[in-house]
Amino acid sequence: MSGVIVTNPPKASAKDVAQLSAYGTATVSEALGRTGSFGLGLRPVQQDVRIAGTAVTVLCWPGDNLMIHAAVEQCGEGDILVVTTTSPCTDGLFGELFATALEHRGVRGVVIDAGIRDTSELRQLGFPGWSAAVSPQGSVKATAGSVNVPVVIGGQIIRPGDAIVADDDGVVVVPREHTAEAVVACEAREAKEAAARYAFQEGQLGLDRYGLRETLVRLGVTYQTYEEYSANGQHHA
Amino acid sequence: MSGVIVTNPPKASAKDVAQLSAYGTATVSEALGRTGSFGLGLRPVQQDVRIAGTAVTVLCWPGDNLMIHAAVEQCGEGDILVVTTTSPCTDGLFGELFATALEHRGVRGVVIDAGIRDTSELRQLGFPGWSAAVSPQGSVKATAGSVNVPVVIGGQIIRPGDAIVADDDGVVVVPREHTAEAVVACEAREAKEAAARYAFQEGQLGLDRYGLRETLVRLGVTYQTYEEYSANGQHHA
Amino acid sequence: MSGVIVTNPPKASAKDVAQLSAYGTATVSEALGRTGSFGLGLRPVQQDVRIAGTAVTVLCWPGDNLMIHAAVEQCGEGDILVVTTTSPCTDGLFGELFATALEHRGVRGVVIDAGIRDTSELRQLGFPGWSAAVSPQGSVKATAGSVNVPVVIGGQIIRPGDAIVADDDGVVVVPREHTAEAVVACEAREAKEAAARYAFQEGQLGLDRYGLRETLVRLGVTYQTYEEYSANGQHHA
Amino acid sequence: MSGVIVTNPPKASAKDVAQLSAYGTATVSEALGRTGSFGLGLRPVQQDVRIAGTAVTVLCWPGDNLMIHAAVEQCGEGDILVVTTTSPCTDGLFGELFATALEHRGVRGVVIDAGIRDTSELRQLGFPGWSAAVSPQGSVKATAGSVNVPVVIGGQIIRPGDAIVADDDGVVVVPREHTAEAVVACEAREAKEAAARYAFQEGQLGLDRYGLRETLVRLGVTYQTYEEYSANGQHHA
Amino acid sequence: MSGVIVTNPPKASAKDVAQLSAYGTATVSEALGRTGSFGLGLRPVQQDVRIAGTAVTVLCWPGDNLMIHAAVEQCGEGDILVVTTTSPCTDGLFGELFATALEHRGVRGVVIDAGIRDTSELRQLGFPGWSAAVSPQGSVKATAGSVNVPVVIGGQIIRPGDAIVADDDGVVVVPREHTAEAVVACEAREAKEAAARYAFQEGQLGLDRYGLRETLVRLGVTYQTYEEYSANGQHHA
Amino acid sequence: MSGVIVTNPPKASAKDVAQLSAYGTATVSEALGRTGSFGLGLRPVQQDVRIAGTAVTVLCWPGDNLMIHAAVEQCGEGDILVVTTTSPCTDGLFGELFATALEHRGVRGVVIDAGIRDTSELRQLGFPGWSAAVSPQGSVKATAGSVNVPVVIGGQIIRPGDAIVADDDGVVVVPREHTAEAVVACEAREAKEAAARYAFQEGQLGLDRYGLRETLVRLGVTYQTYEEYSANGQHHA
Repeated sequence: MSGVIVTNPPKASAKDVAQLSAYGTATVSEALGRTGSFGLGLRPVQQDVRIAGTAVTVLCWPGDNLMIHAAVEQCGEGDILVVTTTSPCTDGLFGELFATALEHRGVRGVVIDAGIRDTSELRQLGFPGWSAAVSPQGSVKATAGSVNVPVVIGGQIIRPGDAIVADDDGVVVVPREHTAEAVVACEAREAKEAAARYAFQEGQLGLDRYGLRETLVRLGVTYQTYEEYSANGQHHA
Repeated sequence: MSGVIVTNPPKASAKDVAQLSAYGTATVSEALGRTGSFGLGLRPVQQDVRIAGTAVTVLCWPGDNLMIHAAVEQCGEGDILVVTTTSPCTDGLFGELFATALEHRGVRGVVIDAGIRDTSELRQLGFPGWSAAVSPQGSVKATAGSVNVPVVIGGQIIRPGDAIVADDDGVVVVPREHTAEAVVACEAREAKEAAARYAFQEGQLGLDRYGLRETLVRLGVTYQTYEEYSANGQHHA
Repeated sequence: MSGVIVTNPPKASAKDVAQLSAYGTATVSEALGRTGSFGLGLRPVQQDVRIAGTAVTVLCWPGDNLMIHAAVEQCGEGDILVVTTTSPCTDGLFGELFATALEHRGVRGVVIDAGIRDTSELRQLGFPGWSAAVSPQGSVKATAGSVNVPVVIGGQIIRPGDAIVADDDGVVVVPREHTAEAVVACEAREAKEAAARYAFQEGQLGLDRYGLRETLVRLGVTYQTYEEYSANGQHHA
Repeated sequence: MSGVIVTNPPKASAKDVAQLSAYGTATVSEALGRTGSFGLGLRPVQQDVRIAGTAVTVLCWPGDNLMIHAAVEQCGEGDILVVTTTSPCTDGLFGELFATALEHRGVRGVVIDAGIRDTSELRQLGFPGWSAAVSPQGSVKATAGSVNVPVVIGGQIIRPGDAIVADDDGVVVVPREHTAEAVVACEAREAKEAAARYAFQEGQLGLDRYGLRETLVRLGVTYQTYEEYSANGQHHA
Repeated sequence: MSGVIVTNPPKASAKDVAQLSAYGTATVSEALGRTGSFGLGLRPVQQDVRIAGTAVTVLCWPGDNLMIHAAVEQCGEGDILVVTTTSPCTDGLFGELFATALEHRGVRGVVIDAGIRDTSELRQLGFPGWSAAVSPQGSVKATAGSVNVPVVIGGQIIRPGDAIVADDDGVVVVPREHTAEAVVACEAREAKEAAARYAFQEGQLGLDRYGLRETLVRLGVTYQTYEEYSANGQHHA
Repeated sequence: MSGVIVTNPPKASAKDVAQLSAYGTATVSEALGRTGSFGLGLRPVQQDVRIAGTAVTVLCWPGDNLMIHAAVEQCGEGDILVVTTTSPCTDGLFGELFATALEHRGVRGVVIDAGIRDTSELRQLGFPGWSAAVSPQGSVKATAGSVNVPVVIGGQIIRPGDAIVADDDGVVVVPREHTAEAVVACEAREAKEAAARYAFQEGQLGLDRYGLRETLVRLGVTYQTYEEYSANGQHHA
């Protein structure tokens, strides 16, 4: 695989991205029709931090971070570095020196489907990261890869310039052509959730609010007292 | 599987549960004869929080949180919501809106053998959770399940009304009929540990305190100086 | 397997260990030629703590912590307890009472390739731990094992007296004969990184600083505009 | 935990068990309302073998097979040995010598939520096994456990005398009081499946046979030609 | 997510696919520049079987196989059914009845990133499968999904009509536009490997055949006798 | 890490190795005092094959099989190639061409703590393998490593020339200085097991043969009829 470094890809609207940053990944994913989540493989190395930005994508060989160096030059204000490898790798491909270089360029964080290191220093720097592993193990710079090509992480396709939202729950991608719709859908969902939140604080039940009593009846779910249930000698479930 | 919602199950004594909340899961599990632990699958989403309460159990279909809505109505003061699925599921079945509804009812926390979301918001709310995964992925409300039937999580059977203790080390169940004994056993164990703690602070060795030097001799464990050991050319272990 | 307790093994120089404590595990591992890391299996139970010390090694039977009691007596000022089991075990073999006894003896922390418990109490005590699991499950004291024999954790051989460095990124071993070289290599690496950090803060690129543009050319990596790349209809990667 | 060996538990009807042996685990699980499966943790050590029998349950300490020796004496014609441990264990607690002893007593196989060994010899003997791991690692006989108490494996409660069916797909438990119903439900399901099999061989579609076209419409699933779909510029899913 | 069923997608050339079936997945992946592999998550349920065909893709909700029924109708001669779920699922979504229906239509096998069941029956039928899990657990037909949209499995994007090759090593996708190139590259690679095979049978070394002695020198790898190495007192690696 | 290729290491006695090949890994591990097992991470790619030989060790960079080429030259009659990587790697570093070259040199098999490929071809060749993964993913030849240095796999230290035994249960290492003792211990154990096998075929119980009834009494294990046990209302375990 000879690699390619793609320059100047289209990017999601900065204004849309700024608006998306007001919503958590759960809301964004719901607004996209329950899609976009990177799944369980990537965990934050800090707590209570949320970022949104545009993806600069990197595809590295396992144990090799050469292409992250090439990617730094492609990064600018408002970007998030999104790194994966051609096969599973847990080595610490990203650390504090990269974060220093990226901070200088206005990059908002890193999402890496491999290992990260210097995690304590990253928290001190205030440079947030989401990774598949934490590992002090270093890497070489010997094998080609690519920058700003579409990559796949956790079942999602991420193209350069796509919007990324990351928080404590995980990471979500919004295709760059759909950020405006996503903002509208997030606003709608948030309004709906605010109303539900208020109702639940007042004691309303989801069963009533969402009309689920009918669903239970339709599915044949019955109510029994504990005595009735016990008398039936029913086994588990 | 047509489901059932069982109402008014018996519950562990509220007084016993209050007393159990003074002990960590390690102490409670030891007091039960080293049983009751849910194992490693469930991790807290917050730090340094311990709760004890009575279980309201929920059995959901994977990717579906319909029955959690049904369960909210069955929850009251002092309960802990205990959720599992009929087969492995990591979707975020539980989030901040459910927590809001449960807080209104006096519920103390959630233990879910599936995914949780809105983790940052849950910490802000002060509603503690233990889960098998953290995921922004949402769910549907399409398939039947059950509430307040016995469920199995991590090798433990949890019946409605059983006492649950959860802290940083994990989650432990105490059968509702045995909470009084468990409190007594915890008190005894805690007293024994307090004495040991004091002795260890003063420099006593467990070898002496617990009579383990004899055990070592009986098992044929020998003491060798490093020189003797090296001279034996002994391989690993 | 009848066990052995080895007394008075040689130890890494206390002065070297003190100097190593100034460096993170990533730096130490790099300084050793990218070796020494225990891998991903062991995670800290606290955040932003780094320790360095000399290993007292323990080999236990799964589910059995008898030999940790024997090991306490072999521990002294500046040591780190390093525990593994003869086959995989996640039970909570180590908890707050052991930490209390070890603190009295000047031990700096525990690294255990098995379960740990009382994690909240350990953080309160300020006794740091790295473990393969967190579990309230207790253990017995019935089967022989060894103390201060070479053990293997995560692909590393740890002999008694070897230097151990542990932080948020993981755990690294430095063979006791090589601590002086490791200190020198860490100093050199840290100086090099400090210079790079300064350059990166000023906007220099790693591509230029490390001469990687030539590497990219040699490997056949090419630059393309997004339009060129798209026109090529190139598939993923 | 002082253990107990329970003698002469009730057993599922031998006739029912014989009839259940005509059905695969998928059919039995469906017939039970999609319950009973031990999940993914247990895999067969042989191929294309199916057994059914009555459970003799064993609860061992990790790394310790003492209680399997005690269980052999409780086993008889038509039984299946069902072993688990008080916490996760992958050691080879069961091997060819146990199989030899059990064959003498008419036992049909072993299901063990721990390690098994001598797998090649077990296949030669024709003594089938399902296990959580394969490992040459041996065990001790030092710690108490129980025989014929209820145990939990993979989310299922297994009581002594319950019916067990095991094949290439996994292991399923049928509570001993429900074997007659299970046989009837299996017969009904098998008849239904035989009819479907014939129809499918003739080219009928499940969409038509099960009335699913209506479900698709109700759920809003639409048909689009590839050209229409592409024109919509729709992203993934 | 309202789903869509896409009809008549473009397909890889049947002739190219027939030629690809002559090569193993390792050869095809190498020929694609070391891309295309679905990774380790999918394992065959039979041994020594290789298939190639064109993908009919299915995206299901976890625990729900409704959309597989819809997909059957879209399948024809030479296809391979490729199924995934919107979040991780191990239930047995596919079994012998589906295989029966697909065989009637000339489908060559199934690749499913979820559970499969009736594995013994599938082997008897001669209908090959690759799956993420084997499980008797059944599913419902309650939630929408899609057919013949692009899906992602194990880091690969699979579009309807892409060529799929599957064997004992795993599963590989070839984009439908690149099958002709892939065939040419496979032929070239196979010729090269045949020559190497012959040379190796005659005793030539890869070091010489591939000019790797120079690489070793360039990388600073040295030859030492065991005595020299031991005298250096070098530690691990 | 600049690598080293060590030539002419000492080897375990060929006669001892031949004798060890008569015993399975479970027997050898027991004979070594329950040590030597590589654990669960390595599984055979064939069934019912057992080999014994002397280790030629290889340490590769992840995703890179350069050093396997260097190792082939160091291999001879009766050797087993033992490969690991400096950090976790699942790529198919070893395949049929290497096997062809090694067969020419009289090598008996491969044990690799990384991926293997061409598994069907390897079975046809009759060249056995044990690996951590099966993967079609290829590798590069760009980074240094070592041959015939001590390596660590699954908690075991393997030095060049150590004896390796591998079968369906796993892989075991015997230090080259201890093979004679191991043979003697295996013979003794096998004799003991043969006697036990005969006794068990005749119906003797392990409880009696090994004097375990006394152990049960000492540990406080009691016998209860099912009625007694049920009357005690005892909960799980």
